[in-house]
Amino acid sequence: MKATILHGVREIRVEERPDPVILAPTDAIVRVTAACVCGSDLWPYRGVRPIDAPQAMGHELVGVVEQVGAEVRSVKPGDFVISAFSFSDNTCQSCRAGFTSACDHSSFFGSKDAAGLDTPGAQGEIARIPLADGSLVVVPAPVDDALVPSLLALADVMSTGHHAAVSAGVGPESTVVVVGDGAVGLSGVLAAARLGAPRVIAMSRHADRAELARRFGATDVVAERGEDGVAAIRDLLGGELADSALECVGTEESMNQAIGAVRGGGRVGYVGVPAGGSRLPIGVLFSRNIMVGGGMAPARHYIPELLPDVLDGTIEPGLVFDLELPLEEAAEAYAAMDERRAIKSLLRP
Amino acid sequence: MKATILHGVREIRVEERPDPVILAPTDAIVRVTAACVCGSDLWPYRGVRPIDAPQAMGHELVGVVEQVGAEVRSVKPGDFVISAFSFSDNTCQSCRAGFTSACDHSSFFGSKDAAGLDTPGAQGEIARIPLADGSLVVVPAPVDDALVPSLLALADVMSTGHHAAVSAGVGPESTVVVVGDGAVGLSGVLAAARLGAPRVIAMSRHADRAELARRFGATDVVAERGEDGVAAIRDLLGGELADSALECVGTEESMNQAIGAVRGGGRVGYVGVPAGGSRLPIGVLFSRNIMVGGGMAPARHYIPELLPDVLDGTIEPGLVFDLELPLEEAAEAYAAMDERRAIKSLLRP
Repeated sequence: MKATILHGVREIRVEERPDPVILAPTDAIVRVTAACVCGSDLWPYRGVRPIDAPQAMGHELVGVVEQVGAEVRSVKPGDFVISAFSFSDNTCQSCRAGFTSACDHSSFFGSKDAAGLDTPGAQGEIARIPLADGSLVVVPAPVDDALVPSLLALADVMSTGHHAAVSAGVGPESTVVVVGDGAVGLSGVLAAARLGAPRVIAMSRHADRAELARRFGATDVVAERGEDGVAAIRDLLGGELADSALECVGTEESMNQAIGAVRGGGRVGYVGVPAGGSRLPIGVLFSRNIMVGGGMAPARHYIPELLPDVLDGTIEPGLVFDLELPLEEAAEAYAAMDERRAIKSLLRP
Repeated sequence: MKATILHGVREIRVEERPDPVILAPTDAIVRVTAACVCGSDLWPYRGVRPIDAPQAMGHELVGVVEQVGAEVRSVKPGDFVISAFSFSDNTCQSCRAGFTSACDHSSFFGSKDAAGLDTPGAQGEIARIPLADGSLVVVPAPVDDALVPSLLALADVMSTGHHAAVSAGVGPESTVVVVGDGAVGLSGVLAAARLGAPRVIAMSRHADRAELARRFGATDVVAERGEDGVAAIRDLLGGELADSALECVGTEESMNQAIGAVRGGGRVGYVGVPAGGSRLPIGVLFSRNIMVGGGMAPARHYIPELLPDVLDGTIEPGLVFDLELPLEEAAEAYAAMDERRAIKSLLRP
């Protein structure tokens, strides 16, 4: 099969690799309908997170099950499935509490699974999914091809935006600030609006992203950053601050922006990978009573809740994909995101 | 009046100071019935937080109002009052949201108030309370003297334990670990039990404190610390971890203990002053989805909720006081806590 491999800084190649096969009785083999590039894929791509060997890339896919192991119960060949970006048993204590991303047996695309077996990346033609019952969600047939981008968005980016909003306690009374106008930040706007927040302020300085933010439900857009950004928020809110902020970048600057955007006792939901340098300044959090929660989104837990809204058209998270390319052009899919020519790139094998 | 002054490391003196007087129309003058020594008073006492001038000490008191400024509406001379340990207007955005400790006009005993006026400490005969309507809570007359320790506990330590439990999301389904067996940790045990937690594990290696923890509602006591402590918790919970942990110390060790005690997606409520060195390790929190909240307790917000339970005897938080001395013996009150001969010292002017 063809698979996307990172060989070094900004060196993406689509290469032949052996077709994945069932290695454990809890596995499923999935033929990929669509995959995509994540903002977090850019950390190793840019060399911020160095790799020490060629790396199979990608952790988001939708596709059709081709084969399942003997112990798999909830998916069968022919099913159209969404894979959560992290694998989980969905039975351990953390999973039962709804935190499948903190599963006792979690593992990831492109590395060893919980049993120590190699797992390919998602940006390829075929994937082996460990713990298939706990990691895959079946989409009821027939699946409209026009919905594929939005279904794919549930694998990570929409679930991650939702996790930021849930972790920040967003509800029908919330005034929300969203820091980050990448695909996750935009998904956070959509999630906050979906949860009923009457006021959603997107921080963006790119016209196209600001436009999508408004389409997703942002009531206001603030272009300023830092203290000027906080002042602009106060201007919009009659001198007050937000109840909740969603941190969707992962840098120290974005975390401080989120913390500065909320009132005393406000809440920050953070989903930006802290590889970007974000820190939690305990002194400020303590004195201002700001609660912080978030991390890797439990996509497997959220997908069943979000899926009906995608199927009936209530939300269209797939709008974050503004570039679609054949798998063979994965290098361009990365370059376009790296150079901010695309918000998020979809790949079709 | 007599007042407790810190002159240097472990150098407490009770000295004559001018009687406080009304300085602003929102002030109240309160004659102190009882005050006490807080674990956080030990930071400057021990020199961990150095002082650069003699410091008026104490931030917890109950007493009788002697005089009020022209704009004070909710308290009057003769009222028996509890003062929150921090002053607040109780009208700003943070206060309205219930976070009076993060008030836009917050200030503290022993320093300048929001108007820049000096405020005495609480460990004295008379106190000036700025923003009296927003800082004081009236106890309905007549006040039974036997209740004074428990009423005084609401000023800080019980409200702080309650804040740890609330911030950790404790409820009737929660398995809770409490890190710290000082007065705040013990109050956290009482608060968790009061909120309905069916399983409360106190971490303590002092027999007297463990006994009080059990009296306050702890179902189990763990003496081990660090990884051994986590293993002991797993032993008690059939291999699992807690839903919530209360961090009531403020050191790096205690914070890591609390974080290690909870499952993926668990919650840590922290109220230990981070002067002790506690940090929030974002990498662990992110990957395990652990939510952290807390900080300075909004005592003014909590007292009206907790007061009825003290008045009707449902809770007896004043049991944390195991030493009562006349104000003149404040030096011994400090020394006894510093040397762990007392959990918490009460002072009677």
